[in-house]
Amino acid sequence: MPENTAPSASVTVLGLGPMGRALAAAFLDAGLRVTVWNRTPGRDGDLVTRGAVPAASPEEAVAAAPLTVVCVVNYDASDAVLRQDAVTAALKGRTVVNLSADTPGRARDTAEWAGRHGIRYLDGAIMTPTPAIGTDDAVFLHSGPADLYEEHRPVLAALGGTHTHLGEDAGRAAAYDIALLDIFWTSMAGYVHALALARAEGVSGADLAPFAQGIAAILPPLFTEFAADSDAGTYSGELNPITSAVSTMAHVVHASEAHGIDASLMRVIEGQARRVVALGHGTDGYTRVAEVIGHR
Amino acid sequence: MPENTAPSASVTVLGLGPMGRALAAAFLDAGLRVTVWNRTPGRDGDLVTRGAVPAASPEEAVAAAPLTVVCVVNYDASDAVLRQDAVTAALKGRTVVNLSADTPGRARDTAEWAGRHGIRYLDGAIMTPTPAIGTDDAVFLHSGPADLYEEHRPVLAALGGTHTHLGEDAGRAAAYDIALLDIFWTSMAGYVHALALARAEGVSGADLAPFAQGIAAILPPLFTEFAADSDAGTYSGELNPITSAVSTMAHVVHASEAHGIDASLMRVIEGQARRVVALGHGTDGYTRVAEVIGHR
Ligand SMILES: NC(=O)c1ccc[n+]([C@@H]2O[C@H](COP(=O)([O-])OP(=O)(O)OC[C@H]3O[C@@H](n4cnc5c(N)ncnc54)[C@H](OP(=O)(O)O)[C@@H]3O)[C@@H](O)[C@H]2O)c1
Ligand SMILES: NC(=O)c1ccc[n+]([C@@H]2O[C@H](COP(=O)([O-])OP(=O)(O)OC[C@H]3O[C@@H](n4cnc5c(N)ncnc54)[C@H](OP(=O)(O)O)[C@@H]3O)[C@@H](O)[C@H]2O)c1
Repeated sequence: MPENTAPSASVTVLGLGPMGRALAAAFLDAGLRVTVWNRTPGRDGDLVTRGAVPAASPEEAVAAAPLTVVCVVNYDASDAVLRQDAVTAALKGRTVVNLSADTPGRARDTAEWAGRHGIRYLDGAIMTPTPAIGTDDAVFLHSGPADLYEEHRPVLAALGGTHTHLGEDAGRAAAYDIALLDIFWTSMAGYVHALALARAEGVSGADLAPFAQGIAAILPPLFTEFAADSDAGTYSGELNPITSAVSTMAHVVHASEAHGIDASLMRVIEGQARRVVALGHGTDGYTRVAEVIGHR
Repeated sequence: MPENTAPSASVTVLGLGPMGRALAAAFLDAGLRVTVWNRTPGRDGDLVTRGAVPAASPEEAVAAAPLTVVCVVNYDASDAVLRQDAVTAALKGRTVVNLSADTPGRARDTAEWAGRHGIRYLDGAIMTPTPAIGTDDAVFLHSGPADLYEEHRPVLAALGGTHTHLGEDAGRAAAYDIALLDIFWTSMAGYVHALALARAEGVSGADLAPFAQGIAAILPPLFTEFAADSDAGTYSGELNPITSAVSTMAHVVHASEAHGIDASLMRVIEGQARRVVALGHGTDGYTRVAEVIGHR
């Protein structure tokens, strides 16, 4: 438990899905007074046993603490909870930290709504799975007023891990979030597809996993290198020309389809890379794809 | 240099692209007598300066050593080199280790061709980028006759890193290779897309990269968990239901398209996940996608 958390601090958690429950549990572990509410009743059982106070309504919940942490599926859901007259009124002068995921535009719109109603607002994003919450591994991103962030930092610190304030623009945490979710889900999609393809070739998940860890190990330096390429607008293919990449992508497509496995994902990837070659950049590196997908 | 490499050992390298050159350089570093050939002349400059012997033709090259390592773009290319009468004849009784990438089917077909011509054949794959060659980080997969692998292992060890013999089926190294390339290129595609999306949101590669490293860090345990799910046919969504995943995928699509960035990759991923929900498995985890792409 972080030393700088006042023992009497209290916090409300709205949303008790897997992540909301993990957040509430971490607050309880840190000794905070935690009030909880969820749209569908019955999700607070374990938390109440451990000392959380169940609220009968979201307005009652937010009135119980100066800080409300919202963690629901997206901003349609957080709007459905927060933008009810009684809840909006009860939040006046209090702080909302919205840790639900959505687009930067929705985050900015919510900050604007909060401002109009005298609600102090921070937007955030969680970049780690639920088991990381309360541990050093947790990663939280925040954006919005710096002084508001500083004020609530001691309570947020109860969630463990690393908290980074990315700036005053309420949409900035969501901007990072969508980019990081882009990496995450695309990698997951590739991995599940690879497991399916391996399986069709008689290679089990247990066989493949150790080598997949090897692929995971080569990503970090490439992430750094590609980020520098993206910033500089350079696309060196000296060590691995995109023509060579296209060829290996085609193998994945052919082998998948030979087994009746949907290869539409790799077909998109191969198509983008082939377009780079068709544009006359075959000796460039893979990062030149950025041009085809539209950012330059 | 590995102690068990006979100092007088000699090896031929066919194909001097970035990877072929890295292999030849590692053999030279290990003190082997290295003969090199490439379809397009002029790629052997540095290697010849460092002691490699340039061959005027592939048949001359393969005749110069008991072991020929082939590393060209794919098996259309290796066929174009090896399946010429003079080369096939010169290879009789010698060993080919084909480290070019292609499908398991092409690997098996080449093994069969080699068998018909009295050529001893191992198929392999390289799972690390060129700078890893000759270092502990290099990863090589091999398949084909175990005794042949054992015989040439000392020379192959000169390439550094970890060598794994995956079995007698010539296609097995390629089966792992395509599955691992599937992970690799899909992850790379997600990352380049994320850089483009971040850039459009005013977040530079340098800003994003440290957090992208955080995503890379959460992949290894998920790889292990998903592999076990794939083997067991279980798809627990207790900690992260696929309905939640679908929502975040949709944010990536919307935010990308709002910036005019092609989101076809995430559209495929979102579509597959939505199909899982439509099939009534919304509370399952993401690995249930395997069913939709066709492996169960
Ligand atoms: N789980 C993870 O590993 C993880 C990691 C990082 C970030 N996140 C983010 O954390 C947030 C919460 O995720 P989660 O894992 O807890 O599961 P989730 O399925 O994304 O969210 C479930 C929560 O949303 C609520 N909800 C949905 N629609 C609602 C509506 N219209 N009105 C009120 N509440 C509504 C649910 O209430 P009911 O119980 O009434 O349906 C439940 O509390 C999401 O934005 C997710 O992207 C999750
Ligand atoms: N670079 C990497 O990081 C990496 C990593 C792992 C695995 N690999 C694999 O290693 C293999 C070689 O890759 P690479 O990086 O060296 O570059 P590459 O572009 O895949 O291959 C270039 C080589 O292929 C030759 N080639 C192409 N078509 C040919 C044909 N029809 N006949 C004869 N030779 C032909 C080229 O000869 P010319 O010079 O005459 O065109 C050159 O020697 C590929 O299978 C690749 O997937 C590469």
